[in-house]
Amino acid sequence: MKEGKIRHAVGVDFGGTFIKMALVNEKGEVRSRAKIPTKETVGLDGWMDAVAKGVEQLRGLNGRTEELAGMGVGVPGFVDCERGFIYDLANLPGWTGVHLAPLIEKRFNVHVRIDNDVNAMALGECTFGAGRAYQHAVFVTLGTGVGGGLLINNKLYRGAYSMAGEIGHMSINMDGIQSPQGRGGLEQYVGNRRIVERAVKLLDQGNPSLIRDLVKGDWSAITPEVIGQAANQGDKLALDVYDFVADCLASAFASVTYLIQPQAFIVGGGVAQSGSILFDPLRKHLQERLSPFFADRIEVKTAELGNDAGVIGAATLVMME
Amino acid sequence: MKEGKIRHAVGVDFGGTFIKMALVNEKGEVRSRAKIPTKETVGLDGWMDAVAKGVEQLRGLNGRTEELAGMGVGVPGFVDCERGFIYDLANLPGWTGVHLAPLIEKRFNVHVRIDNDVNAMALGECTFGAGRAYQHAVFVTLGTGVGGGLLINNKLYRGAYSMAGEIGHMSINMDGIQSPQGRGGLEQYVGNRRIVERAVKLLDQGNPSLIRDLVKGDWSAITPEVIGQAANQGDKLALDVYDFVADCLASAFASVTYLIQPQAFIVGGGVAQSGSILFDPLRKHLQERLSPFFADRIEVKTAELGNDAGVIGAATLVMME
Repeated sequence: MKEGKIRHAVGVDFGGTFIKMALVNEKGEVRSRAKIPTKETVGLDGWMDAVAKGVEQLRGLNGRTEELAGMGVGVPGFVDCERGFIYDLANLPGWTGVHLAPLIEKRFNVHVRIDNDVNAMALGECTFGAGRAYQHAVFVTLGTGVGGGLLINNKLYRGAYSMAGEIGHMSINMDGIQSPQGRGGLEQYVGNRRIVERAVKLLDQGNPSLIRDLVKGDWSAITPEVIGQAANQGDKLALDVYDFVADCLASAFASVTYLIQPQAFIVGGGVAQSGSILFDPLRKHLQERLSPFFADRIEVKTAELGNDAGVIGAATLVMME
Repeated sequence: MKEGKIRHAVGVDFGGTFIKMALVNEKGEVRSRAKIPTKETVGLDGWMDAVAKGVEQLRGLNGRTEELAGMGVGVPGFVDCERGFIYDLANLPGWTGVHLAPLIEKRFNVHVRIDNDVNAMALGECTFGAGRAYQHAVFVTLGTGVGGGLLINNKLYRGAYSMAGEIGHMSINMDGIQSPQGRGGLEQYVGNRRIVERAVKLLDQGNPSLIRDLVKGDWSAITPEVIGQAANQGDKLALDVYDFVADCLASAFASVTYLIQPQAFIVGGGVAQSGSILFDPLRKHLQERLSPFFADRIEVKTAELGNDAGVIGAATLVMME
C-alpha cells in the first residue's frame, strides 16, 4: 500500500453548534470524521481537550500520525492568519483576542493554520471543488448571513488587514436597509431570514401559493428550503422570491466582476442547494447587468464540497503550504 | 554629474485629445515633456511617427538614450498587457485589435509596456504619489467617466482578463439608472455630466444659488468646477450636490472596502481638485457606511501627481520591472 506516502491534514471547522473535524488527504478526500457539540466544551481548555479527543478519534481510525502536514482551523470571525490570532468570534463569547495557533502547536506538536471559516471553505472549493480550474474566483456562501472568500492568483486574498471577502455587506442599494454594517447590504436582502420575510409578506398580501399547504398554514415553519420546494413545483410566488434573491445576488456579483474580474463565482450554502431555481435567474440577471466584455468572461458554479467544505477547507489551509 | 547613473523611462499618455509624453526618472520626476494633438496623427504609422518625433524632442533636451529603461504607454481602453495587445480603444476609431508593443519595440529598440491609462495612473500614484506608502490601494479618477485601478500586494491587479478596476460601473442602486454597463453604475451618478445635470435640476426647481451669478444665467457654462467654486463659497445648493456625489462615492467605496479591504483610496481627476468640499463629506459618509472594524482601517487621499499622473504612470509601467 502506498497510502503511507500520501500526506494528510486535520481540518477543524469550529462552528457555533458543532466542532467538526476530519482527517483529509492531499486529494481532498475525507478519510475519517469527528463531531463535538460546541456547548460541551467550556473555555479554551475545554475546547482544546475536545479537539484532542477528536484527534484521537481520527487517529484511531487511520493509524499513523507522523505524516500529518498539520492542522487547519476555520473559525467564524476575524482572524490574523499570519499570527494565528483570533480577534473576535461574533457569536462565541470568550473568543476575543485569543492567540490560538501557538497553543495548538504546543499541545499537538503540529504545524497549525487558522483562518476565517469562509476563507477556508473558499480555499477548499478552489483547490478540490467547483473552483479547482480557476486562478481567480470568488466563493460565496448563502445562509443566515452571506459570506465570501477571494482567490486571487491561486491564493486566498485576505485584504490589508485579514478582513476582505465580506460580500454580504456590499451595498446593492445606497438608500436601502440599514444595518450595523451600513446601508443596503446584500445580506439584508438574501440572508435566510430575509428570504422568509419576503415570502411571508407576499403570503400575507393574500397571494396564492403552495407554501400554505407545505407548512399547513404555520408561517413559522417557512424556510428557504420550503420556498425552494414550492418553487421547484412551479409555484409563482416562490419563484418570484427566488428571482428576487437571484437578482440581488446578480447586482452584487456584477459589481464584484467590474471591480476584480474573477473567472467564476462559486456559490455554496443552504440556499445554493435549491439548484436551477436559483442559478438560472442568477446567471440571466448577471448577464443583463454586465457589458458583453465582462458577461462573456464570467461563470457561476455551484459549490461541490457540501457539508464537508468546512473541514476540507480547514485541512487545505495547511496542506497547500 | 551622476545623472548618467539614474534610470529613465519614456511615458506615453495616449488620450483622445493629446498624446502626452515625458522623460521620467526613477524618482518619478518629469525631466522633459512633449505633447502632440491626437488628431494630427493619421493611422498607426502616423501615430508611430508622432511618437518618434516626441522621443526626439525628449532626447534633444536630455541627451543620452542608452540608459532608457524602456517606454510605457497608457491607452484609454482594454489591453492585454502581457502581450502588449490593444483590444479596443472606446473613443479612438481604428484602434481595435492592434498588437502595439512589438511594433514600438522594433521601431525604437526599447523594452515596451502597454496598459490601460487608469492602471498606469494607479501605478504612478502608488509608486511616486499619494499611494506610495501602501501595498493595497484603490486608485479612482473622477471625470467624464469614473475609472479605477487596483494595487494588490504592491502590484497592479488586472483581474482574470485584464479588465478589472471598473469601479465606475459598480452598482450603487440595483434599480437605478440603466446604461450599457448595467443598472445603477456609480458613473451614472458622479460622472461630470451627471453632476451638472443634478445642479441644473435643482436650479430649475427655483432653488437659490451662487451658480446663477457665476455663469451669468447661462446653464451651458455650468461645470463641476463652477459648482465647486460656489460650494467653496458656502453655497447650499452646490454643497448639496457635492454631498450627494460624496455619498455615492462612499457607497461604492464601502462595497470595495468590504470586498477587498485596501488600506486606502487615492482619488484623482478634475472633481477631486475641489478639495475638502468633496473629501470631507466623502470621509464622513464612508465612515457611516462601514462597521468600525473596517472604518478604522481605511483612508481616503487626494491624488498628488495631477496632470502628470498619466505620463509618470506610463513610465512607471516599465520602470518597476
